[in-house]
Amino acid sequence: MLTDQHLLRIPGPSPIPPSVQQAMNGTMIGHRGKETKELLQRILPRLKPIFGTKQDVIPIAGSGTAGLEMAVTNAAKPGDHVLVIVTGAFGDRFAKICNAYNLHVNRIDVPWGEPIDPSYIESYLQDHPEISVVFATFCETSTGVLNPIQALGKVIHHKSNALLVVDGVSCVAGVETKMDEWGVDILVTGSQKAFMLPAGLMFISASERAWEVIENNPQQRFYLDMRTYKKSLADTSTPFTPALSLLFGLDQVLNLIDQEGLSNVFRRHLLVRDMTREAFKALDIPLLTTDESASPTVTAVQPSDFNSEELRQTLKSHFNLSLAGGQQHLKGKIFRIGHMGYCSPADTLQTISLIEIGLQLIGKNIELGQGTAAAQQIYIQQEVR
Amino acid sequence: MLTDQHLLRIPGPSPIPPSVQQAMNGTMIGHRGKETKELLQRILPRLKPIFGTKQDVIPIAGSGTAGLEMAVTNAAKPGDHVLVIVTGAFGDRFAKICNAYNLHVNRIDVPWGEPIDPSYIESYLQDHPEISVVFATFCETSTGVLNPIQALGKVIHHKSNALLVVDGVSCVAGVETKMDEWGVDILVTGSQKAFMLPAGLMFISASERAWEVIENNPQQRFYLDMRTYKKSLADTSTPFTPALSLLFGLDQVLNLIDQEGLSNVFRRHLLVRDMTREAFKALDIPLLTTDESASPTVTAVQPSDFNSEELRQTLKSHFNLSLAGGQQHLKGKIFRIGHMGYCSPADTLQTISLIEIGLQLIGKNIELGQGTAAAQQIYIQQEVR
Repeated sequence: MLTDQHLLRIPGPSPIPPSVQQAMNGTMIGHRGKETKELLQRILPRLKPIFGTKQDVIPIAGSGTAGLEMAVTNAAKPGDHVLVIVTGAFGDRFAKICNAYNLHVNRIDVPWGEPIDPSYIESYLQDHPEISVVFATFCETSTGVLNPIQALGKVIHHKSNALLVVDGVSCVAGVETKMDEWGVDILVTGSQKAFMLPAGLMFISASERAWEVIENNPQQRFYLDMRTYKKSLADTSTPFTPALSLLFGLDQVLNLIDQEGLSNVFRRHLLVRDMTREAFKALDIPLLTTDESASPTVTAVQPSDFNSEELRQTLKSHFNLSLAGGQQHLKGKIFRIGHMGYCSPADTLQTISLIEIGLQLIGKNIELGQGTAAAQQIYIQQEVR
Repeated sequence: MLTDQHLLRIPGPSPIPPSVQQAMNGTMIGHRGKETKELLQRILPRLKPIFGTKQDVIPIAGSGTAGLEMAVTNAAKPGDHVLVIVTGAFGDRFAKICNAYNLHVNRIDVPWGEPIDPSYIESYLQDHPEISVVFATFCETSTGVLNPIQALGKVIHHKSNALLVVDGVSCVAGVETKMDEWGVDILVTGSQKAFMLPAGLMFISASERAWEVIENNPQQRFYLDMRTYKKSLADTSTPFTPALSLLFGLDQVLNLIDQEGLSNVFRRHLLVRDMTREAFKALDIPLLTTDESASPTVTAVQPSDFNSEELRQTLKSHFNLSLAGGQQHLKGKIFRIGHMGYCSPADTLQTISLIEIGLQLIGKNIELGQGTAAAQQIYIQQEVR
């Protein structure tokens, strides 16, 4: 096998574009100097349209989980009753963090692979007026479901005063996001998914309504206190040492997004999702989610007559193609294909054509090229106007 | 379109593996110091099996053409009668260099797309005993023909004393090469093809018989005097400033070749050639060369019912996929696909599946996925044992 080629098609970390890799090699600068201020001045305004907000979007050194914890400790006060909607492994992560802070956790578990039903949440909140924060996941990485955050925002703010806190880790920057319009009060994401960067940065933004809670929240916190960052941001600086090489990379990521156009970035993600899904339909291999709830960034496949793990191992050993397995109770039952960030239609065709070979090699009887042809057809339909 | 993705499938320069790109970023060192000597000590012995020789293989800063000129000025003495076998644009380059040095040039033009016929050369040399050097091209980049150098060496050395000088630019390191066994007297190649490096280095090696000519050759030359390099090599050094970043990269290229195994590198090139050719056969699109003379590093396609340039432009604008056009009188009549160096079966499937879309987009009626399926089938046949 050709060494040094790794086809990374897991739902994060995603591949890094070469110009971003190069940017991250930039000469180190002092984080209290003019260069860093100029870097932040270039970066900060360009994060807002990605979140769909007029509020500041704060980049902070930490993983996505640090971002989720920041959301919990800033939005929820000690003693608060909160609702965590769990549609998979990352909803579960929110619940674990809330439990670690001894909040009163109401938990709604949605079967994995299905999206949140906003009308159920509406009636739940009517029955539980004590709930002050609702935690939800935008793209549930473990299942490939894109939850209806817009509709959820509507029902939550209809009759309740609860804040809506959203984990956008595996989709923001790849999927259209309108934080302000949808009534999302805190939105968190990470750098290693649609942001096309290594892990190590998280991004967080809060609505005016959320800032009121945050400012007066007595919860114990220091590094993850959003107020500290807000103060520094007023001076275009950071309270603690920023992860500068990741910010160098982020600056170039934002250049790439500008060059392609944000709406084209979103359209490309929809395209590669549709190409991927139609390929599996053509091969008669079941998908975990419905078309309506399918995320543009990750697709979960649920085979009925072959072993996911055998396929993954075959693709890894033949092509150094990495796909993800299932998590928790879906382990061994599904496999997941990441198509977020630095992923083109060409990459998607490559992945599909390799999966077809892998299927043959593990003894699943398919017609070679059939999935590829379905994906090619989708490209032609969507891109040629 | 996703910016920052360039699918470079021309017959050189070829893509650079990421670890090689990184290696070339190494801290600069002095070229007269211990580090450079150690670098050369690591590099030089590992070049020999690639050339199939026990002789020294000398890396020199210069393009492939500098290497061809070095071969001419060191092998041919002023007033010599030489034979240049021209099977395409790069045979023609050899003839131009020989003319520039006022040699007596006998030229045999083989129709482009066809290989050298060794028996014809044998009888030609019998009729022209004055010829002291025969110049031939191993892989003719402009047509995708791999000339039968082994058979050519046999007939040349059978009854003549002529030296055989071979341009191996677009195939050495991707195709099995046995310089000593085949009786090649001077072999030249460049860095930007199967060597997986940027252009800027050429490699040259000479047989004992050739060195006798070189040592006593009164031809005027300085930078390209092979004797100067031989003297420095005895001390593991270079007479003039070496292109160090390319040597850093070369060191890593040789690591990658060691990791994959040289015979596996050759096998991979045969595989991607066969995958590419079978795809076009399945699509009923003519190839320029026969299977027997097809190079493992580049494939020329000669469409009968669509416009090559329109296809190339479509693939470039949709996918940033670069294919090469034809050269000289084949301009507009063929297109060429490079599959040398850093090119995997996965890359080949990607290229084919994109070409299928391109064909549809320019109105050529094909069955989508059919070429991909043929290539997939070849992979399965050759790789699963």
